[in-house]
Amino acid sequence: MAYLPILGLAVLALLTGQSSAKYEYQTKYLDVPLDHFSYVNESVTFKLRYLTNDTYNPDGSGPILFYTGNEGDIELFAQNTGFMWELAPKLKASLVFAEHRFYGKTLPFGNASYESPRHLGYLTSEQALADFAYLLAQINPSNRTVRARPVVAFGGSYGGMLAAWFRMKYPHMVAGAIAASAPIRQFDTDCGVFNQILTSVFSVAYTKECSLNIGRSWDVLKNYSSSADGLKTLNEKFKFCSNLTKAEDVTGTFFDYLIDVYGNLAMINYPYNSSFLAPVPAYPVREFCGRLAQNYTGLELLTKLQEALSIYYNYNGQAKCLNINSSYDSSMGDLGWGFQSCTEMVMPMCAEGGSRDMFPKQPWDEKKFSDDCFKKFGVRPRPIAPAYIYGGQYLEGASNIVFSNGLLDPWSGGGVLRSGNSNIKIVLIPEGAHHIDLRAADDNDPGSVRAARQIHVQNIQLWLKQYRKVKKTF
Amino acid sequence: MAYLPILGLAVLALLTGQSSAKYEYQTKYLDVPLDHFSYVNESVTFKLRYLTNDTYNPDGSGPILFYTGNEGDIELFAQNTGFMWELAPKLKASLVFAEHRFYGKTLPFGNASYESPRHLGYLTSEQALADFAYLLAQINPSNRTVRARPVVAFGGSYGGMLAAWFRMKYPHMVAGAIAASAPIRQFDTDCGVFNQILTSVFSVAYTKECSLNIGRSWDVLKNYSSSADGLKTLNEKFKFCSNLTKAEDVTGTFFDYLIDVYGNLAMINYPYNSSFLAPVPAYPVREFCGRLAQNYTGLELLTKLQEALSIYYNYNGQAKCLNINSSYDSSMGDLGWGFQSCTEMVMPMCAEGGSRDMFPKQPWDEKKFSDDCFKKFGVRPRPIAPAYIYGGQYLEGASNIVFSNGLLDPWSGGGVLRSGNSNIKIVLIPEGAHHIDLRAADDNDPGSVRAARQIHVQNIQLWLKQYRKVKKTF
Repeated sequence: MAYLPILGLAVLALLTGQSSAKYEYQTKYLDVPLDHFSYVNESVTFKLRYLTNDTYNPDGSGPILFYTGNEGDIELFAQNTGFMWELAPKLKASLVFAEHRFYGKTLPFGNASYESPRHLGYLTSEQALADFAYLLAQINPSNRTVRARPVVAFGGSYGGMLAAWFRMKYPHMVAGAIAASAPIRQFDTDCGVFNQILTSVFSVAYTKECSLNIGRSWDVLKNYSSSADGLKTLNEKFKFCSNLTKAEDVTGTFFDYLIDVYGNLAMINYPYNSSFLAPVPAYPVREFCGRLAQNYTGLELLTKLQEALSIYYNYNGQAKCLNINSSYDSSMGDLGWGFQSCTEMVMPMCAEGGSRDMFPKQPWDEKKFSDDCFKKFGVRPRPIAPAYIYGGQYLEGASNIVFSNGLLDPWSGGGVLRSGNSNIKIVLIPEGAHHIDLRAADDNDPGSVRAARQIHVQNIQLWLKQYRKVKKTF
Repeated sequence: MAYLPILGLAVLALLTGQSSAKYEYQTKYLDVPLDHFSYVNESVTFKLRYLTNDTYNPDGSGPILFYTGNEGDIELFAQNTGFMWELAPKLKASLVFAEHRFYGKTLPFGNASYESPRHLGYLTSEQALADFAYLLAQINPSNRTVRARPVVAFGGSYGGMLAAWFRMKYPHMVAGAIAASAPIRQFDTDCGVFNQILTSVFSVAYTKECSLNIGRSWDVLKNYSSSADGLKTLNEKFKFCSNLTKAEDVTGTFFDYLIDVYGNLAMINYPYNSSFLAPVPAYPVREFCGRLAQNYTGLELLTKLQEALSIYYNYNGQAKCLNINSSYDSSMGDLGWGFQSCTEMVMPMCAEGGSRDMFPKQPWDEKKFSDDCFKKFGVRPRPIAPAYIYGGQYLEGASNIVFSNGLLDPWSGGGVLRSGNSNIKIVLIPEGAHHIDLRAADDNDPGSVRAARQIHVQNIQLWLKQYRKVKKTF
């Protein structure tokens, strides 16, 4: 089973999208070196896409709010980071959204970008950060007489990791960073934490029976999967778009789908309706768990589970069947994140089952993971990379970063939740899901989300003030 | 004429050596990824050489003093950084000297390392810094229960640039850095500064006539070069190992040699005898200028110049002739630095002549430089690289670095001489040449050098104290 939510971040890039384009921008391209750190192919460049809006900064002197694009089409992030759009007029700021190499329209080798490690090998976070620095050096240059305009980096999820690392590695380029739901410690946290938090989200959303029912469901499903009659019952019950015909269809494909759905529901557990792949109600986990609120077993458990699932795949009642081949519309994005997970972004995940979490037991198997990566991409992971390149537990050399985490977000287990460094600020959002604070304000936002945004603004204003006070030391 | 001291740093790596091995260490090798930042050749590694000594830290718990090796054989730096050896027993510290990739015995492709950009392209400062981080992650690991021992980085010249950048880019790996004579701003300083400082060193060493005589010498030499009789006179006068036969031998080869020698003399203008390529007296610039102390012209000027030069090439009276093909024993080191200068380490140099400096006028010609690089190495420079990768004028994101500069060192013009950031310390050594503070203490050291070393120790102790106070923020 490859059911672990390793692609969770990529999933999210797609899931957080909203129905229609709300914000407008200019689309631009810049030629950027393919390899910033070696000169084997010194002259090779590619076109990096970025989006800009100068409406709120007509005289060109204000700050730049800069989104460090993550694993997906940058337009999606531009449309789903309403906080930046709401902030720009207040700060008379320009907006820039930079696309991450190998995603969206920023494909260094065009359609051949994903062909082999010879191309895909240049898809790394370090190269992406250098792209961002190169872009800023071009569009916002410093020279010996005029200093560049101050830049504030923003990002959520993997984009939040990039925002934080951008400030850590390129402090000369960026006055500070808002890193929302950025699990920069997912690399060396306990592998079971993600699933434990996920379980707790499903335990507290309505009644504790919700996670207990899920925990019992795996054995029930497995029992039904082992006979032709059982499979028939499952097919009738869940109305799969393609009938399941063997045990592995249940314990493989369907289990994978369910595990993905639970993770997705927790991440998008926002206090308002959202709709991208399918309409989802406000607080979808609560809705889901409302249908699994009592102790169910056997066939009744499956009936209730099917009703609950419809919250995710059929809230508008228009789905004719349940398609379990993917929990979201696939795109190149998840293949790219698959490669990143197989090289430097190795986030070990496991489930212990029993009383620790609501999932089937699944240990982390580093060797199998590495072999799978080699089969799929021709590369093996370098799990030590994040630790030696970016550091992890000790951040005393860093400054001007806000790490915000929704405590209802399973990724918070890999987030920075404490700081021994007064220049690193921590914002905990008890009622928050995955980087809700970067989304546009909504009447239904809980107080903790509103407060988080206020703290962001205070920190940004502080960084801008600091920036203006600094003298060059030439 | 390609006479500008672009290879000055490499020259120095060779020149600062002393006659015999004073310090002892173990030699070790570690397999390190060839490319830390992309996964095109994920599995390729090479053997990085490093030297260690644990004599002063028998229980393995003390700090690590870590030399960030520069463009040359690491043994040379180990033998010529006496300050670290003197400090180790006081701090009960271990010593580690890490070799820079593509120098000394750390040749990723063996004898083929310098063959083409396909190999040599991996010779960059960013990869070298990542090598150092990788090495420390292996020999001094942090994990969730035990934190790594504190590390202090040291380096002089290009090694000092690396020490400073190591703290900037990898603060989780290193508690602080002593960056001696590190011209991290040579990339965007005025191209003439180096030669102006050099001129001033020769103006103040004895009498002002010294630099004026040098300034006049170029035309005199050129005049003699234009006739067969003149060349004959020069050959008799200077006793070249190979007779000069045409004008370009004078205005090309001999000019280049002289310019190199003047730069080298200033860099090694130490207050005690030093001998590596040839014995040199204490304060060699003063000795040199003592022989050019009055206003000379014509043939007399050449006679005096020859006498002065003998300070550099024949102080022990054993040289039978003047070899102007190189001002120092060549090695692979300068070819490597040549490549680095042709890619990311582009330090524009120029001479204005006239009253500004004592050299023949030589503007900085970026296009010609680029064409020469392409001819020599098949690459073109990326002059923007240091600015966007490392920053330059604004260091407010950095901390725990001491920048020390001898004001008699021509490289000080590209150094950090002021700081608007209280966590970046500046040490000016009015009587100092090139990173004299990293050398072993000597009875003839001037007060400013002794004081610099005391300030280094105070800062290191402060960093170690800070390090021990920090709690992990996991």
